[in-house]
Amino acid sequence: MNRDKQKQSKPNQLTGKDIAKHNSRDSCWVIIHGKAYDVTEFLPEHPGGPKIILKYAGKDATEEYEPIHPPDTLDKYLPKEKHLGEVNMDTVEKEEKEVDPDEEARLERVKTMPILEQCFNLMDFEAVARRVMKKTAWAYYSSGADDEITMRENHSAYHKIWFRPRVLQNVKNIDFSTTMLGTKVDIPFYVTATALGKLGHPEGEVVLTRGAKKHNVIQMIPTLASCSFDEIVDAREGDQVQWLQLYVNADRKITEKIVKHAEARGCKGLFITVDAPQLGRREKDMRSKFSDVGSNVQSSGGSDVDRSQGAARAISSFIDPALCWDDIPWFMSITKMPIILKGVQRVEDVIRAIEVGVQGVVLSNHGGRQLDFARSGIEVLAEVMPVLRERGWADRIEIFVDGGVRRATDIIKALCLGAKGVGIGRPFLYAMSAYGLPGVDRAMQLLKDEMEMNMRLIGCSSVEELNPTLVDTRGLSMHTTSVPSDTLGLNVYDPLVGPRESKL
Amino acid sequence: MNRDKQKQSKPNQLTGKDIAKHNSRDSCWVIIHGKAYDVTEFLPEHPGGPKIILKYAGKDATEEYEPIHPPDTLDKYLPKEKHLGEVNMDTVEKEEKEVDPDEEARLERVKTMPILEQCFNLMDFEAVARRVMKKTAWAYYSSGADDEITMRENHSAYHKIWFRPRVLQNVKNIDFSTTMLGTKVDIPFYVTATALGKLGHPEGEVVLTRGAKKHNVIQMIPTLASCSFDEIVDAREGDQVQWLQLYVNADRKITEKIVKHAEARGCKGLFITVDAPQLGRREKDMRSKFSDVGSNVQSSGGSDVDRSQGAARAISSFIDPALCWDDIPWFMSITKMPIILKGVQRVEDVIRAIEVGVQGVVLSNHGGRQLDFARSGIEVLAEVMPVLRERGWADRIEIFVDGGVRRATDIIKALCLGAKGVGIGRPFLYAMSAYGLPGVDRAMQLLKDEMEMNMRLIGCSSVEELNPTLVDTRGLSMHTTSVPSDTLGLNVYDPLVGPRESKL
Amino acid sequence: MNRDKQKQSKPNQLTGKDIAKHNSRDSCWVIIHGKAYDVTEFLPEHPGGPKIILKYAGKDATEEYEPIHPPDTLDKYLPKEKHLGEVNMDTVEKEEKEVDPDEEARLERVKTMPILEQCFNLMDFEAVARRVMKKTAWAYYSSGADDEITMRENHSAYHKIWFRPRVLQNVKNIDFSTTMLGTKVDIPFYVTATALGKLGHPEGEVVLTRGAKKHNVIQMIPTLASCSFDEIVDAREGDQVQWLQLYVNADRKITEKIVKHAEARGCKGLFITVDAPQLGRREKDMRSKFSDVGSNVQSSGGSDVDRSQGAARAISSFIDPALCWDDIPWFMSITKMPIILKGVQRVEDVIRAIEVGVQGVVLSNHGGRQLDFARSGIEVLAEVMPVLRERGWADRIEIFVDGGVRRATDIIKALCLGAKGVGIGRPFLYAMSAYGLPGVDRAMQLLKDEMEMNMRLIGCSSVEELNPTLVDTRGLSMHTTSVPSDTLGLNVYDPLVGPRESKL
Amino acid sequence: MNRDKQKQSKPNQLTGKDIAKHNSRDSCWVIIHGKAYDVTEFLPEHPGGPKIILKYAGKDATEEYEPIHPPDTLDKYLPKEKHLGEVNMDTVEKEEKEVDPDEEARLERVKTMPILEQCFNLMDFEAVARRVMKKTAWAYYSSGADDEITMRENHSAYHKIWFRPRVLQNVKNIDFSTTMLGTKVDIPFYVTATALGKLGHPEGEVVLTRGAKKHNVIQMIPTLASCSFDEIVDAREGDQVQWLQLYVNADRKITEKIVKHAEARGCKGLFITVDAPQLGRREKDMRSKFSDVGSNVQSSGGSDVDRSQGAARAISSFIDPALCWDDIPWFMSITKMPIILKGVQRVEDVIRAIEVGVQGVVLSNHGGRQLDFARSGIEVLAEVMPVLRERGWADRIEIFVDGGVRRATDIIKALCLGAKGVGIGRPFLYAMSAYGLPGVDRAMQLLKDEMEMNMRLIGCSSVEELNPTLVDTRGLSMHTTSVPSDTLGLNVYDPLVGPRESKL
Repeated sequence: MNRDKQKQSKPNQLTGKDIAKHNSRDSCWVIIHGKAYDVTEFLPEHPGGPKIILKYAGKDATEEYEPIHPPDTLDKYLPKEKHLGEVNMDTVEKEEKEVDPDEEARLERVKTMPILEQCFNLMDFEAVARRVMKKTAWAYYSSGADDEITMRENHSAYHKIWFRPRVLQNVKNIDFSTTMLGTKVDIPFYVTATALGKLGHPEGEVVLTRGAKKHNVIQMIPTLASCSFDEIVDAREGDQVQWLQLYVNADRKITEKIVKHAEARGCKGLFITVDAPQLGRREKDMRSKFSDVGSNVQSSGGSDVDRSQGAARAISSFIDPALCWDDIPWFMSITKMPIILKGVQRVEDVIRAIEVGVQGVVLSNHGGRQLDFARSGIEVLAEVMPVLRERGWADRIEIFVDGGVRRATDIIKALCLGAKGVGIGRPFLYAMSAYGLPGVDRAMQLLKDEMEMNMRLIGCSSVEELNPTLVDTRGLSMHTTSVPSDTLGLNVYDPLVGPRESKL
Repeated sequence: MNRDKQKQSKPNQLTGKDIAKHNSRDSCWVIIHGKAYDVTEFLPEHPGGPKIILKYAGKDATEEYEPIHPPDTLDKYLPKEKHLGEVNMDTVEKEEKEVDPDEEARLERVKTMPILEQCFNLMDFEAVARRVMKKTAWAYYSSGADDEITMRENHSAYHKIWFRPRVLQNVKNIDFSTTMLGTKVDIPFYVTATALGKLGHPEGEVVLTRGAKKHNVIQMIPTLASCSFDEIVDAREGDQVQWLQLYVNADRKITEKIVKHAEARGCKGLFITVDAPQLGRREKDMRSKFSDVGSNVQSSGGSDVDRSQGAARAISSFIDPALCWDDIPWFMSITKMPIILKGVQRVEDVIRAIEVGVQGVVLSNHGGRQLDFARSGIEVLAEVMPVLRERGWADRIEIFVDGGVRRATDIIKALCLGAKGVGIGRPFLYAMSAYGLPGVDRAMQLLKDEMEMNMRLIGCSSVEELNPTLVDTRGLSMHTTSVPSDTLGLNVYDPLVGPRESKL
Repeated sequence: MNRDKQKQSKPNQLTGKDIAKHNSRDSCWVIIHGKAYDVTEFLPEHPGGPKIILKYAGKDATEEYEPIHPPDTLDKYLPKEKHLGEVNMDTVEKEEKEVDPDEEARLERVKTMPILEQCFNLMDFEAVARRVMKKTAWAYYSSGADDEITMRENHSAYHKIWFRPRVLQNVKNIDFSTTMLGTKVDIPFYVTATALGKLGHPEGEVVLTRGAKKHNVIQMIPTLASCSFDEIVDAREGDQVQWLQLYVNADRKITEKIVKHAEARGCKGLFITVDAPQLGRREKDMRSKFSDVGSNVQSSGGSDVDRSQGAARAISSFIDPALCWDDIPWFMSITKMPIILKGVQRVEDVIRAIEVGVQGVVLSNHGGRQLDFARSGIEVLAEVMPVLRERGWADRIEIFVDGGVRRATDIIKALCLGAKGVGIGRPFLYAMSAYGLPGVDRAMQLLKDEMEMNMRLIGCSSVEELNPTLVDTRGLSMHTTSVPSDTLGLNVYDPLVGPRESKL
Repeated sequence: MNRDKQKQSKPNQLTGKDIAKHNSRDSCWVIIHGKAYDVTEFLPEHPGGPKIILKYAGKDATEEYEPIHPPDTLDKYLPKEKHLGEVNMDTVEKEEKEVDPDEEARLERVKTMPILEQCFNLMDFEAVARRVMKKTAWAYYSSGADDEITMRENHSAYHKIWFRPRVLQNVKNIDFSTTMLGTKVDIPFYVTATALGKLGHPEGEVVLTRGAKKHNVIQMIPTLASCSFDEIVDAREGDQVQWLQLYVNADRKITEKIVKHAEARGCKGLFITVDAPQLGRREKDMRSKFSDVGSNVQSSGGSDVDRSQGAARAISSFIDPALCWDDIPWFMSITKMPIILKGVQRVEDVIRAIEVGVQGVVLSNHGGRQLDFARSGIEVLAEVMPVLRERGWADRIEIFVDGGVRRATDIIKALCLGAKGVGIGRPFLYAMSAYGLPGVDRAMQLLKDEMEMNMRLIGCSSVEELNPTLVDTRGLSMHTTSVPSDTLGLNVYDPLVGPRESKL
């Protein structure tokens, strides 16, 4: 037992007892990675609310802190004088955690999780991740805005596009490599930016860096990564290419520093997020948080109740809602990286993007995590391309699409309609969360296998041959719900049944 | 025990024993709020049928009577000589109520009801109300006409409208205040009129008055309130604005008195209900009543069976089915309040309303409680506005929409299509029924939170900027049902499954 | 006990023992209504197959025989010399029936069947009938062709039609009476012909005659009634009007006799069924029969297996599949009754019907019992009327619709589109089967109640005012199925849930 | 017991012991049909992967080998010197099979399987086959590509086509015979080619040969049959007609030999498969295989894991993905059989097929087993025919359709739209697997029964009369999914219920 160890502090080291005294709103110390911090004054400013910190007042908060704060957070946001120095961790009482039946059930599921070879498609990783991920991590990754209609529509929209394949084409040799912003890639997808990778895997985003390298695809580095930007860049190998996803800070100096640093470190594209002036309300995530901190608290109606709105909003308060078209020239002035607007959602804005001179747009609704009832990227693409072709502008910009891509057929549909490539986010997070790098590797390999076969079956041996006549999109833009069900009528109908067993 | 009390009547007071003798159709006395009434001759005229009264013949009927009769009912409808005077309530035997297992289960659910902070959207209040409201109250509030197709369509219709958001707009400062009939409001919704508030909360409609004040929105006072009109007006604070919803009485003198009184007491709008010449059959409500009074009665097929048709019809027999366009000038002659027709359902009638000179219409189907297969207000709006714009009449009238509004995105959709504001009814009733004023407060606050975010996400900083190009309504007017299901085919299909657990 | 009775035959009476000897294919006698018949030679000709008869060889078959054979069947089809004369029923062993658990459960359900006043709409009668009817009777009434797609579409089609109601019409006095083929009726429906009424009620079709009288609507007498034609006519009262539904016999002499007899007895319309040259395969009915006679028989693959195809086909082998347009003038020559073609299914045939000079058509698919994927009558009506109106032919013929009518709103929709009236069949059978005449009475009364209210709510005080601008049929002719479900995707989605209970 | 037998080998016979020593990757012998083979060197080349063979190393593999390898496989692919000669089977230890609970449950289901007469339609055979077939066989037959959307769409598409039947046609005598490529057939379907018939029935494809003879329809012989080509031809009787389905080998000499042999043996049509340059990934099949060989193996991530991709891919590696339009003239030069392209999927390719001079096309997506989201053949037909008719080319080619045909109404729909006939595959496999030849016989007879009735009901007495005005295809090409479900809204809705039981 740890408690049998010698509980002596080295000189200058704090002890668990020292910390434990500061366990209230009046004086609140916490331990993170073996060091103590006085966060008393910071409490009201904490984007995630004070309550979640007070839960760890006087204690070690590392485990909760780790996945949702980039490594340099404390240095950036807490004044030096509040850094109290090292703690002799042998003197800190290990907390006996309450047995959480949900968590116990999860650990049981981990023991019998399917082996990697049982995953035959990208949905399979999601199915496994759902069973083996921690509840709050799953809630954060899997949630969407409001009723999650758009989140689900994103994949569903692909189901409204059907193929008109060509036959009797020589498809012995298939080449589905392409280029994106000048970079040659093996297959027309990239790993799009997603936040808080360490919620799913202790190593975080660098796992995706390694997977992208192996399959020669581009990784887009997220602003809200769990790893620091430099850690992710450092994980790059050889001539591997990365892009930067950017949330623009209200303080443009900070933004400028980030952009210039990214360019200096070799990033080859700047993807400015334009669909998130405010980060979305994701009720599934909020509900999951709530049950964590508040379930047996009787409401006082007052300000003491933690109105936590989930992980993402907590870490995103810096995003500038004033960002607008007039800012784009400034970005062009501070970097030579190609600039791409991520989150464009109608043809008028694509035209404006071309006029303002950016190199690309991502037709995206942020994975359904921002505005519910935003249309899917693929539907917007089908609206955009005919207009651009009519103007002869189709080649003046590179158009990407993300959201809902799960199958190689989805990728092919997007390319047929005119996209340069597609971004894939959650599926790789799930593969990583369930199986680490081998999961990401297999997920990408499965897409390549599907891609090879489906390119053959549609009768095209290269991505140049993909074109709009190969798809039928007539049902795509029809957003209908059925007439509400005829409850009484259905109740009295005896459904047909097949033959019954005979008696023995 | 009460029975140990001294059972002496004060002079002139009646005793329980006196009343108990009159417990039949031949002589029927009841106690209400400590006073006795002889209702023998009134029995056949009771809009709710005689049976429900006879259940309380010779007894105290206060609890059942209270929520569905406005306070001045007895004075208005029962001749003075039938008012028998005070009863010494100590002498009235308290009835030992039968244990109702449904009611017991409900009381258990009340004990574990979620705290208010667990409600993250308007549907959540409904979910809680459904569990904690009395069965008959829930049945009255939640029921609709016939198969309740229109009732459900009302919200579903919003799901057929999708956004075409603008990006890169400066949305730092969002102002979603607007004006309705000249009144400035904080957010473009009003509390629409709904009947019988005391079924949900002992204080009734005044709770909504207080909530509306707090969030600076307008309350429409219902004709069929549980509180009296004056009580609701008295609950007003400061310069708070109220409107009057009016069911027109066959006796126009009564109607004139009501309208003039409302104007005198400061009401700022007269909403004449035009979609209810007869109040709807709501079978869920009727069924709930029936189980109350008749479940173990064997049918005699005769007139003795109570054909109760629910609370609403019982109290609405005065409504004039002869009300027609020719009556509108008379209303204009008796009041200076703006006149708005509530329940208009096609463009031809909107045009006629403009021609006849009223100030507004509410496109509404009465919350799906009147004519089943009436279209949703939002669908009618999408039919109306292009026609008005073509005529240049869009500004000649204020158009409101109600029915099915549950999300700020719904409000935004209505405003994009041309509505001045939307009415919200049931959601606030549910919030009030479950949590009282704090519930109403939180429900309104949640709408404001959603509104702020979604205005940002659609790229508009004020309601003036909302316009039809921001929505895609192509699927809206397509009322389809799927081909009936292929039962045998579905039965033989093995659905795909994900990876199975491996063995330990 | 019966067996204690004296088992002496009167002179000339047969005894149970006499009959019991003839219990095989070689010599097969059966008792029906106390008389014996030798059916040995008839066995191979029995439309229902020999097997079902052999089950009763040497026994009393009355109970099984009764509901599916009109009273004059034996006289018509079995030569006089096979009529063996009276049987002393006291000498016939009462068979101890095997306990059928399904039947026992049904009898239990009968004991707790809802009282009539709990039925608030036509579906409610069907719900009760489904629980309390005999299995085979329910199977016969409720079944349709093939996958029963058309049968269900019939009602579903009405759900694709939505209202555009007028408001502010004086609807104090509502008159929804109309005329059909010159007869004044209280409400625009008639009781359409349905076969085998005694399966549902021991008195059969005369119950419907009485109901129709009470509500002043017309009854169409079916060719395949359980009661004889004359019994049904005899049940008529006063100036009550009946029509005759006619299956045309290959032997036109028989048909001529039937038609002339009907006219002589006062029938006011001749409805010739044109959608049933062969009666449909109804697998639900066939399966129900099969389980009756064959469930534990191991297949020999030979001809001995009874390929029973249900009750209807058994009794309909006389219908002439050669009936064609050229026959219509002959019908006109033999009767002065108006002639109506029942089962017309496309506009081209309505035009031809007008040209050939008949007085009416029923747009019908035989209740979904004949050709699966035939369109609903109401959909055909929406196709027919614009064509007729364009030609100015709308008044040259009376158009009726049947199939799927369950609500007064359905009737109103049909009349708005141009129908003269609608036929209702199954719902009255169910009401009769569950509750007898009071059931039929209440079913009709409920339709009248609904009719009054919905006429008011649509803003029309008489059926003349109903017109196409009051309905929106844009979704009506769109027969779509959704893209097959995304099984894997749905499996991994966590549906949103409302607030959880808090802990105690 | 076998073990009591004398275990002496005849001279030159190998013993079980001899074989058992070679039970590893280093030396792997197996017994098949009583003969031993050294497959050590063949292991890495085995299309199904080495793992599945190693499972039987040193043992008798006949049972597993039989259904998925044509009889001449070993002679063709294993050098003569690896054929080790006869084994004295008495000396081979019978393996005691592990009890497989799934297999035991299946055998129980076989005991109570419905008798043949309980099958009333083609779906019924599938329902029975699903219960009584071996798991892996069912998985192979029933699986489709990716999400199996196209596989299900194939039948679903027919549900989007509705009838516009004619009435009052003389339909006494119905003749639904027709000709296909000059051959007179009794009914317009043929038995299309499907692989591995012995998985379902020990006799394999010859069962279908006999069924086709009995009903005078054409059988298409599959390249990947379990029986050899000659066995299937030998099963032919009288003037029975067969066609050949051809997968084209990369080695054209082999293909030439196959084609010339087929012509020599009397085949009357050459159907070249053009939709399968690579055989599809069928995850249901892959998953079923996996659980067979790998379920409790912990993943090593290495090459040792068997990436089995199901039976079909294992046996199809010879198919030439380079096959293209330029090859067609060569086929014309080597055979006089009519040439038909099987798997055409858009009108452009039908036009090209006419131009290149082939005699027919099959509009097909390979039963949904190749490219998911390929459209159904019937939808492609509705696209093709109007274009051909406009060019006056409708008679220049015979057009067949396969995929999803389950009812005579489906056949009629295809013929109305212009098809010459339809191919039916899986339904006959299921009938055969469940009931052998009597099953196939009954399945075909049921189609004839349905055909006769439905021809009557649509008002046509011969296939020549079928034409496009008899169908309404407006909903056919609309591939839509509903807006994702409103989870929270649906959760709070109380569905209407019918009347409750009354209390006793």
